[in-house]
Amino acid sequence: MDFKSIGVIRTPFKNLEGTPIQPIGGSKVEGTVELNPEYVEGLKDLDGFSHIILLYHFHKAKDYALQVKPYLDPVKRGVFATRIPGRPNPIGMSIVRLKDIQGNVIHFRDVDIIDGTPLLDIKPYIPVTDVKDNVKIGWLEDKSKKMSDKKGDGRIK
Amino acid sequence: MDFKSIGVIRTPFKNLEGTPIQPIGGSKVEGTVELNPEYVEGLKDLDGFSHIILLYHFHKAKDYALQVKPYLDPVKRGVFATRIPGRPNPIGMSIVRLKDIQGNVIHFRDVDIIDGTPLLDIKPYIPVTDVKDNVKIGWLEDKSKKMSDKKGDGRIK
Repeated sequence: MDFKSIGVIRTPFKNLEGTPIQPIGGSKVEGTVELNPEYVEGLKDLDGFSHIILLYHFHKAKDYALQVKPYLDPVKRGVFATRIPGRPNPIGMSIVRLKDIQGNVIHFRDVDIIDGTPLLDIKPYIPVTDVKDNVKIGWLEDKSKKMSDKKGDGRIK
Repeated sequence: MDFKSIGVIRTPFKNLEGTPIQPIGGSKVEGTVELNPEYVEGLKDLDGFSHIILLYHFHKAKDYALQVKPYLDPVKRGVFATRIPGRPNPIGMSIVRLKDIQGNVIHFRDVDIIDGTPLLDIKPYIPVTDVKDNVKIGWLEDKSKKMSDKKGDGRIK
């Protein structure tokens, strides 16, 4: 399968060190999507949505392991039970708050993405399909509260 | 960017006709992920999560337009303001309910995916990062309630 970069994500996070490990940790921080100009017509109507889903290439993840130690845990976990960038297909997903669209540039908040990340897709965030009830989060049960202010230490998450 | 299929998604939906347009429309329907056996170690700990995010290749979408008429609307919308499969990078995302994992086979519910779809990634669904408040959904505002029982008519959504 051949996918292509359709733009680039710009954020204040120049290195893995200090990049929030999930969007909630970056909620006061703003970033932009610079969509390649040939796709700008595809942004019509997006400004009516408060939140958007960004899919992107974890371009710093050069390799992966099937079991990994996440930031929040001393135990090795299956890679598919984590959001770690190093995965068989290094595709990242973040739900961010849309602030403004000017031409081909989208301003957003709640950034957990490293500067220069290649963009793959933008989708609208739709609660009727994207919000679930009665959720269990396994090994993260006691840890998700800590995610909000956890910063990267240079590992690929 | 070169991504690869890591498994296949099996569902009762053999054709685009009749496939729910969003997971909520398929909530009584079960599907399976058949992960390629070489990745099975990566499933460790996933069974603690009630919901998982599937990323997959919209393999039936052969082309795209930057503005499209969605199912629910007579007006052309920007492709990035829709979840239509025909998009510059035809990557789909569905949040489904995990039922059971047996070896390399994951049983799930809330299916809106066509049988034979190539799997790209599995991620855990984590409310602290994936659930947002004060959400606005633009052109879908009056239409999202109708999504629950809307079925495909053979278009690529």
